[in-house]
Amino acid sequence: MEAFKIREIGLYTDFYELSMAQAYFYAGKKDQTVTFNYFFRTNPFNGGFSVFAGIQDLLDLLENFSFSPSDISFLKKQGLKSEFLNYLKNFRFQGSIWSVKEGEIVFPNEPLVQVKGNIIECQLIESLLLNIINYESLISTKAFRIKYVAGQRIFADFGLRRAQGFGALHASRAAAIGGASSTSNVLAGKLFNIPVSGTMAHSWIQSFENELDAFRTFTNIHPDNAVLLVDTFNTLESGVPNAIIVAKEMEAKGQQLKAIRLDSGDLSYLSKKARKLLDAAGLKYVKIAVSNQLDEHLIRSLNEQGAPIDLYGVGTKLITAYDNPALDGVYKLGSVDGRPALKVSENVEKITLPGVKNIFRFLDDEGMFYCDGISLLEEENYEAIQHPYFPSKQTDVTLLPGYSLLTKVMAKGELLIDLPAVADSAAYAKSQLNKLNPEHKRFDNPHTYKVGITHALASLRDHLLKGK
Amino acid sequence: MEAFKIREIGLYTDFYELSMAQAYFYAGKKDQTVTFNYFFRTNPFNGGFSVFAGIQDLLDLLENFSFSPSDISFLKKQGLKSEFLNYLKNFRFQGSIWSVKEGEIVFPNEPLVQVKGNIIECQLIESLLLNIINYESLISTKAFRIKYVAGQRIFADFGLRRAQGFGALHASRAAAIGGASSTSNVLAGKLFNIPVSGTMAHSWIQSFENELDAFRTFTNIHPDNAVLLVDTFNTLESGVPNAIIVAKEMEAKGQQLKAIRLDSGDLSYLSKKARKLLDAAGLKYVKIAVSNQLDEHLIRSLNEQGAPIDLYGVGTKLITAYDNPALDGVYKLGSVDGRPALKVSENVEKITLPGVKNIFRFLDDEGMFYCDGISLLEEENYEAIQHPYFPSKQTDVTLLPGYSLLTKVMAKGELLIDLPAVADSAAYAKSQLNKLNPEHKRFDNPHTYKVGITHALASLRDHLLKGK
Repeated sequence: MEAFKIREIGLYTDFYELSMAQAYFYAGKKDQTVTFNYFFRTNPFNGGFSVFAGIQDLLDLLENFSFSPSDISFLKKQGLKSEFLNYLKNFRFQGSIWSVKEGEIVFPNEPLVQVKGNIIECQLIESLLLNIINYESLISTKAFRIKYVAGQRIFADFGLRRAQGFGALHASRAAAIGGASSTSNVLAGKLFNIPVSGTMAHSWIQSFENELDAFRTFTNIHPDNAVLLVDTFNTLESGVPNAIIVAKEMEAKGQQLKAIRLDSGDLSYLSKKARKLLDAAGLKYVKIAVSNQLDEHLIRSLNEQGAPIDLYGVGTKLITAYDNPALDGVYKLGSVDGRPALKVSENVEKITLPGVKNIFRFLDDEGMFYCDGISLLEEENYEAIQHPYFPSKQTDVTLLPGYSLLTKVMAKGELLIDLPAVADSAAYAKSQLNKLNPEHKRFDNPHTYKVGITHALASLRDHLLKGK
Repeated sequence: MEAFKIREIGLYTDFYELSMAQAYFYAGKKDQTVTFNYFFRTNPFNGGFSVFAGIQDLLDLLENFSFSPSDISFLKKQGLKSEFLNYLKNFRFQGSIWSVKEGEIVFPNEPLVQVKGNIIECQLIESLLLNIINYESLISTKAFRIKYVAGQRIFADFGLRRAQGFGALHASRAAAIGGASSTSNVLAGKLFNIPVSGTMAHSWIQSFENELDAFRTFTNIHPDNAVLLVDTFNTLESGVPNAIIVAKEMEAKGQQLKAIRLDSGDLSYLSKKARKLLDAAGLKYVKIAVSNQLDEHLIRSLNEQGAPIDLYGVGTKLITAYDNPALDGVYKLGSVDGRPALKVSENVEKITLPGVKNIFRFLDDEGMFYCDGISLLEEENYEAIQHPYFPSKQTDVTLLPGYSLLTKVMAKGELLIDLPAVADSAAYAKSQLNKLNPEHKRFDNPHTYKVGITHALASLRDHLLKGK
């Protein structure tokens, strides 16, 4: 994220990471080797899957995860001690990272990112990792759902103005991975090579004495790419008729009006009426774009009503993931110096999976996703996976083709892969969509995708639990 | 926002702003003088008021609202034309801005920010203005509500890991304006001079063979400021007893344990039990901090249950404004070359107020906020305000003391005020709280605060409406 490759971002962390880091330092633990796992506990939007995103931004930002002299002064004022501050002066993340691919279809409790290194470096990057991966995965999942219902219709990200501050940049990137064809956010377009789009607001029209002049002037200047906003005064009695006048004038000059946009009122009713008026004027090629509080449910409803809409511009509900604005991802210690670590918690579902782990995806005989298995890293082959809490519920995976979802993307602080372009991650996500059975993709009560753990992992966890 | 004073941020805008700007340019409209108003339509969280924030960040960022050579190249690739791109090369915002104070208590439909300048500069900054003001006002309002129920107890922002990407920085700033005493986000602490706080996570404890060693080691290194997290294994059977052992050992060294923290389970039950155990051990001074999915409703419930909690750490629900993650603020054209402008819309409630406006706040005889009036700027004195849609509902304001809420903060692109520090805005917000009647502050069905418009403004609007 070029615009934010600014000096050092080591302070973009929770203070307790630094407080713990200092304590590790003085407790003689700074060279302990640990692994941490990132995972989330619940698919957002009551959905049946999630789309992983953010690893590229994370890896990119890790290069700048260091502390400037003024950062060190600031930390000194917060009471951190000299010897530790000297250590921070030269701090760079030099650990290893395994991650699932950007655009991968993923499920709760899977260790999607695994970080290995000394305990200080692994601890310090926690907040940054969670901040980026949680949000981008949330938005790519939301965008994926919207694209799923939009189908062949174009879906554009219009969210900048309602985004949570500079979160807009991550969001437009993640939306493109999930399936948005373009973004209104020009800076995101430049940084991430996403097509940008947008034409006019009400203010353009209001700045003229009348709507017809406004339309005519705009299409004179932008004849190739004009989308006329038709709801400033009255959509069917003024906006669409004026758009038709201008479109016919354009035809006389050998030009074609691209589209009209509806931004208020009943979008189903108005799009049908507008389509009829346009068609009756011989303007079948003029497309209809709509916006105004759209989300996947409203788009599905508009489709079901047969609304003749060609482009959906989605803002607030996408960019904030309005109905579920945070992914509950966490970053938990898996092992210390080879010893597996466990967190028990008052809440049973918060008991963690110990050790260094891997994820395998198994396919059925039609090549569709059948189930995922979480294993210990050293398990090369295993015969079955079991339900995390009910050992008797198990699945034989011996005959199923499968592959590891985790790839080593960083070693000793050095990138091992070329960071994928947004378009590549988007294509990958799209390619995976067809391998997920529709039962997991439906919005209401989706069928739960099976994610099991190996007997070895279950035994390790249960053994450690008994010891507590 | 120092960390983002990076090169030029002119591209942080929706593409349609640029598309319109180019069209204004070629339509010979570039020297038209316009005013735009920022306002929102609905108080968030079903609340009765909002707390305005973000103007400092906005004014700060406007200084960097320009285009680099590489931005210009990017825009050229998007099809923008040479003459207009030459204009953008030297672009700086040189207009004027009026704004209500940061920390002001505000209400729907009030023109909280008014921007005057040429039509291109006023149009281009729209997306940035909305992005910043919408989000910061949303979060300061949420924080204000949380602080309102937390009362004398400390309320800390723990949100970074669940924030929507870099939105975290704006959010921690806005949370402090609204009433958070500290933030976990170290960078926000440095940039905005907000106290930072945080001590330990579960990983600290898991990195040891046992909890007692973990507590003991930490307090040895951080004797003055330790908050022991007691729920890693079992709060009442392990965490609190171990914390007590360590606290007594500290006493023997003349030290005092600061606090324990609960992060799971039933916080009311556990805090009461923990308090009893601590008190029985003669540790009345050890405070209890809690976290885990807190918001204003849960905090109120914990207070009502008499939970002996001293500090609330609030994360996800604050930083994303979880139950209402966007403020619906818009930026609408008010006048063009002195001619008032109107937008009608299919939705009646979206009809805008035309002209250049002011806001007055009127007080009752006890100095409490009584009502606000939106007037035309030129109206020095007026006798009454009326309901926006029902003229017969009116209020005589002749005898009420009142004051303008808008201050000119920028003229010809130059700042006219010293930007207020976060602490000053927080103090201002707090000072206003007592002047708002409790009926407007309650969470359930709050009494609607009266915001009227003058007869002159109503007449102007109705006159323009007839003309459409």
